[in-house]
Amino acid sequence: MTGVGFVEVGPRDGLQNEAAVIGTSDKLALITRAIAAGARRIEVASFVNPARVPQMADAEAVCAGLPERADVTYIGLALNRRGADRALATGRIDQVGAVAVASDAFGIANQSQTSDASVKEAQAIVAAARAAGRSGQVTIAAAFGCPFSGPVDPGRVVAMAARLAEAAPCEIALADTIGAAAPNEVADLVARVRAAIHPLPVRVHFHNTRGTGLANVWAAINAGAATVDGAIGGIGGCPFAPGAAGNVASEDVIYMLERSGIDTGMNLAALVDTSQWLGGIMGRALPGMVARAPAFPAATSAGVGA
Amino acid sequence: MTGVGFVEVGPRDGLQNEAAVIGTSDKLALITRAIAAGARRIEVASFVNPARVPQMADAEAVCAGLPERADVTYIGLALNRRGADRALATGRIDQVGAVAVASDAFGIANQSQTSDASVKEAQAIVAAARAAGRSGQVTIAAAFGCPFSGPVDPGRVVAMAARLAEAAPCEIALADTIGAAAPNEVADLVARVRAAIHPLPVRVHFHNTRGTGLANVWAAINAGAATVDGAIGGIGGCPFAPGAAGNVASEDVIYMLERSGIDTGMNLAALVDTSQWLGGIMGRALPGMVARAPAFPAATSAGVGA
Repeated sequence: MTGVGFVEVGPRDGLQNEAAVIGTSDKLALITRAIAAGARRIEVASFVNPARVPQMADAEAVCAGLPERADVTYIGLALNRRGADRALATGRIDQVGAVAVASDAFGIANQSQTSDASVKEAQAIVAAARAAGRSGQVTIAAAFGCPFSGPVDPGRVVAMAARLAEAAPCEIALADTIGAAAPNEVADLVARVRAAIHPLPVRVHFHNTRGTGLANVWAAINAGAATVDGAIGGIGGCPFAPGAAGNVASEDVIYMLERSGIDTGMNLAALVDTSQWLGGIMGRALPGMVARAPAFPAATSAGVGA
Repeated sequence: MTGVGFVEVGPRDGLQNEAAVIGTSDKLALITRAIAAGARRIEVASFVNPARVPQMADAEAVCAGLPERADVTYIGLALNRRGADRALATGRIDQVGAVAVASDAFGIANQSQTSDASVKEAQAIVAAARAAGRSGQVTIAAAFGCPFSGPVDPGRVVAMAARLAEAAPCEIALADTIGAAAPNEVADLVARVRAAIHPLPVRVHFHNTRGTGLANVWAAINAGAATVDGAIGGIGGCPFAPGAAGNVASEDVIYMLERSGIDTGMNLAALVDTSQWLGGIMGRALPGMVARAPAFPAATSAGVGA
């Protein structure tokens, strides 16, 4: 393959797990920098109960400040119709992202819905987005494991994907919310879901909780995933998933893909710069590795090995 | 594939880059714990100039204290005949590990040898080990990039491997000393070297400097690498390679492989325990991810998704 799509989720999945609330203008600066670094699909906010996720309380304000870009798809996450209606009401959200959860335990913790209920709600959200002339997509959360009940049956995820596809989302995403997956099962599930929802594309969303994030990205792409998520700096996690840790860092993903000859349209240097800027804003060292590593030296004429 | 070999390199490649000198008894405790965790090949020391690598000044003392284990191969690293002779003189080193360097610049920085000279020296080291009734192996350092001169021609590495194989080492290892590699080139080089040195096996050694370590392990195994290295806790790096960062963490590697159905004979829980112990010894948080993550919850009867 020669190219994959990339979704920058830092402004939503990245920031939502941060204790310190980042102001609207800094959120918009992050989004603007992501666009400058090549991002053309960006999760800009989630429309959820601000008492539960204070970081997302300014979702409408963020949307009001988004750069006008016909070439960028702004994605807003919603867990129910109320959130979807808020997202659509901004007039700035191009795509509503719904979440269906693979386990009852995490479904209830995350969004007060059993797994089956979350599938129905996600279908309704996609329908609402389409009725409003926008697009909808669905992410299956805890697709590779539940923080409470443990292993998740891949057959269940495949069946959910097939049902969700009936609502005509633009894609189905598989999320390893707790960063438990390893490459073999990722390859298997991506292939199975891809077959089940064809011709809809599969997107993947990995957390690096156990160090397997980039290996999973690699396995997913090789199994036919069309799009991968990343968060600049490797921030993120779910406040309702115990032990959740950061997303795969966008700059680490792009380093790996670029060096592997796979085009994403992203500018690695700009991502690294943004990651370092973001670390300054957040006042801490971020988990991403590439932004902490020396720039790979350019070839010189010295040395037989060069 | 159903199983791969594993080499624990923490006591050598891990510790050598640590500023604080770890005492001999702690080194032996690490080695003992690694054996208890299933390690059957362990890099226990390097026999180098103690003025250059003070952490390895007690190599002979470490060897004197090694548990008597007929089922464990103790590996000692040497960069020249002098080091190899020291290793063999201990009577406790089963296998001498030589290092040939893919670039002149790093060869000179690391061991005062051009690339070609390092190949000849490595051949001599392996011959000396075999003459003494032990085995020898060779690691090609900077196989995926040089910290000084940049890109390394894979054809050069393949040619080096073929020459080194003539000395009858038990394996050739490819080391991404500076953690620059991405999975595609790893798969390519492993396949090419494997073909060039058949039937000798290929071993791989990855650093996680840019987050690609586990993805590279995965790609290498799928391309036919027989053995992978790891360092408990993800410590390590080369004092003479600017910007070098830790080895892939043994517990992260084993988590990924075990969850992928690949047997290594290692005990993940014991590795995690040792990693946490090592962090206490070193007085800092270690880079490995699995040892910081919650144990993946066991399946319960709760939840449809379980």
